[in-house]
Amino acid sequence: MKKCVVLKGDIIWTESPDRFEYQEDGYLVLEDSVVTGVYPKAPEGEHELLDFSGSLVTPGLTDLHLHAPQHQFAGLFMDEELLQWLERHTFPYESRFADSSYALKAYRSFVSDIAGSATTRSAVFATIHSDATLLLMKLMEEAGLSGYVGKVSMDRNSPDSLREETEEAIRDEEQFLDEASAFRNIKPIITPRFVPSCSDRLLEALGKIAMERNLPVQSHLDENVSEVEWVRSLCPWSSSYADVYRHFGLLGDTPTIMAHVVWPSDDELGMLLERGVYVAHSPSSNTNLSSGIAPVRRFLDMGIKTGLATDIAGGSSLSMFRMITDAIQVSKLRCRFIDSSEKPLRFSEAFYLASKGGGSFFGNVGSFEKGYDGDILVLDDKAFPSVLRPELSVPERLEMYAYRHPDAPVSAKFVKGRRII
Amino acid sequence: MKKCVVLKGDIIWTESPDRFEYQEDGYLVLEDSVVTGVYPKAPEGEHELLDFSGSLVTPGLTDLHLHAPQHQFAGLFMDEELLQWLERHTFPYESRFADSSYALKAYRSFVSDIAGSATTRSAVFATIHSDATLLLMKLMEEAGLSGYVGKVSMDRNSPDSLREETEEAIRDEEQFLDEASAFRNIKPIITPRFVPSCSDRLLEALGKIAMERNLPVQSHLDENVSEVEWVRSLCPWSSSYADVYRHFGLLGDTPTIMAHVVWPSDDELGMLLERGVYVAHSPSSNTNLSSGIAPVRRFLDMGIKTGLATDIAGGSSLSMFRMITDAIQVSKLRCRFIDSSEKPLRFSEAFYLASKGGGSFFGNVGSFEKGYDGDILVLDDKAFPSVLRPELSVPERLEMYAYRHPDAPVSAKFVKGRRII
Repeated sequence: MKKCVVLKGDIIWTESPDRFEYQEDGYLVLEDSVVTGVYPKAPEGEHELLDFSGSLVTPGLTDLHLHAPQHQFAGLFMDEELLQWLERHTFPYESRFADSSYALKAYRSFVSDIAGSATTRSAVFATIHSDATLLLMKLMEEAGLSGYVGKVSMDRNSPDSLREETEEAIRDEEQFLDEASAFRNIKPIITPRFVPSCSDRLLEALGKIAMERNLPVQSHLDENVSEVEWVRSLCPWSSSYADVYRHFGLLGDTPTIMAHVVWPSDDELGMLLERGVYVAHSPSSNTNLSSGIAPVRRFLDMGIKTGLATDIAGGSSLSMFRMITDAIQVSKLRCRFIDSSEKPLRFSEAFYLASKGGGSFFGNVGSFEKGYDGDILVLDDKAFPSVLRPELSVPERLEMYAYRHPDAPVSAKFVKGRRII
Repeated sequence: MKKCVVLKGDIIWTESPDRFEYQEDGYLVLEDSVVTGVYPKAPEGEHELLDFSGSLVTPGLTDLHLHAPQHQFAGLFMDEELLQWLERHTFPYESRFADSSYALKAYRSFVSDIAGSATTRSAVFATIHSDATLLLMKLMEEAGLSGYVGKVSMDRNSPDSLREETEEAIRDEEQFLDEASAFRNIKPIITPRFVPSCSDRLLEALGKIAMERNLPVQSHLDENVSEVEWVRSLCPWSSSYADVYRHFGLLGDTPTIMAHVVWPSDDELGMLLERGVYVAHSPSSNTNLSSGIAPVRRFLDMGIKTGLATDIAGGSSLSMFRMITDAIQVSKLRCRFIDSSEKPLRFSEAFYLASKGGGSFFGNVGSFEKGYDGDILVLDDKAFPSVLRPELSVPERLEMYAYRHPDAPVSAKFVKGRRII
């Protein structure tokens, strides 16, 4: 017999970007950890009832791009731009993860923080260090999280302490992948850092590995104007930055996430659409590093698959609620200053991107439709007294929560039906 | 004999925008609630020692513009622009403050929240309702806060429930001011809502009252493109929006705060500089309402007096630390997209604006120089474990705190030397 679990509360989710679905005082029913639906009344038959009456119950959120080793310095060095910031702070800091005891301390702290956040799924960059990366996977698995973690590959334009020899990098990646298959909920992902850090030979090898092992891919694309120019000079044979990844089998031949996409050409957007590539829109990071504002309205209008991402530590907050409001805010400035035809994101659209939008990279994740995984958050907005609250609709309460309390601890959290908080 | 109080901790402040002053494991000395200085050793002689070792000790922050009655709906209706947002939500909601029992509930909640925040001084808009405004002043006074509160004046282009008759508005203001002189730390301020809401006759009368009673003035200026055009059509005789206030004695004839200044002309900037008017830069609100990005680098370069402001509920957060990072973030986008000669704010500059910059409107407030009022925050950044913390300088710890924990409760707070948390 299937195990039936029912959550009672004010249940809200998005099935499409344009509107919220919700059921006040409703019942979210899971059978064997999978959603069967949301109902105004409790189901008949035997079930375990978890009563979260008066709290908001939402799908878990997906952080589609972040760098776990950078979490320790999130919120620092924010007066610099991307390439300088990488060289002066990020690369030296990532070098420390050669030391497994340091990695243990730092990754324990990261996993504790992300486990307590609203994020249930994530696509994570580690460093070039296999041991530390496997440790991170183990810690995330033990915390009950689900997602992808990549050992980073990089063999050029990097400091000595963070530059792999090309053939060794390829062997290390293969060996890492063999060992990384041990985990159940945390899976490996092919992770060339970005074109400037990877030789053609390394990119080619990584593309082949991704195809042979049928593994997903994540990298960076079109984040910063100087970076785009650099790629043009590094790969004069390519028609665009995206074309470099495409050429080496790293752009949608297997499921692919490209972070940022702030400065895409029309050709590149067409390529992302056609090849089903996910964009990890990172509004906070793109602002902090003065990179720009991604054309997220165009992504939506074209039908490019899009999720939201903190991009720790370009972004300074692990909160996906903060990313929801940051995405709305920068879209307003893009509309005001860059292209008035690109209307700002509405709240339901941004919530959709953070839940089902990015979640779909992981399967049926980020919604409460039948057949979706039991990724669930319980948000106790009663904890924040408001005279107006009794008058508010469930979507209004969620909007207020996202804007005012983005860093508040969630009061319960389920990943694939398993309660981890 | 003077009463001497000494705070021990990691003390940090700005005297000028370009750099932090700090003393790790230092001693901040107050005599009769006024700062005498910061020292590496404890002073000789009798004193009360408050030991905040390991915590950050900073000046209290100033919120130079916010609307107390709007606090209840902060974080709602963020999908709209200024004029629509005013008409649909703000004006109807403010009308409720005719009911004193409603006002009591709402203002109690507001005062509880701002008292717990990093704000020690503020310049507050109430509503047109004298009774409710006096109640707000009383509650803020009782909470130990210091600042200005204005009964709002508005007699045109407003809904019936929020439009005063002109002569009655003038009489009400006079009567309000008589009664409002009862408070010690919360003082009244002349508050025409903005030009579109105030007839020439009302503005003229308010200017006279400000001069006669030597009272400060606060209002809104150049927030939104449509608003600026509206003012041009309402006051075709004026050379600019700022010129309307100037004409009626409401622009620096007494100390004046103008909120926003997103779309100033060169003439207007010159006028603000010459007349010593303070700009309340409200980055979060200006983004939320799609108003734009104020040229804060120009304010600094010209020497225009500038502070930061939440502008609740155009802004959705009461946190002045959030305003510091928001101000930096929008300045990066302004530099990237509007004028690359306007360099982004650095962290010390934004902190200066939130402390001494806006604080100076209230006298010697917002620094730890000799003679400054004892407005002090204690921030327990140890509460947020970071593997990197032992390596960080005091300014780096403050930057990390501002970016990562802007809504964290302060662990102690002093206003004019009196501990209120």
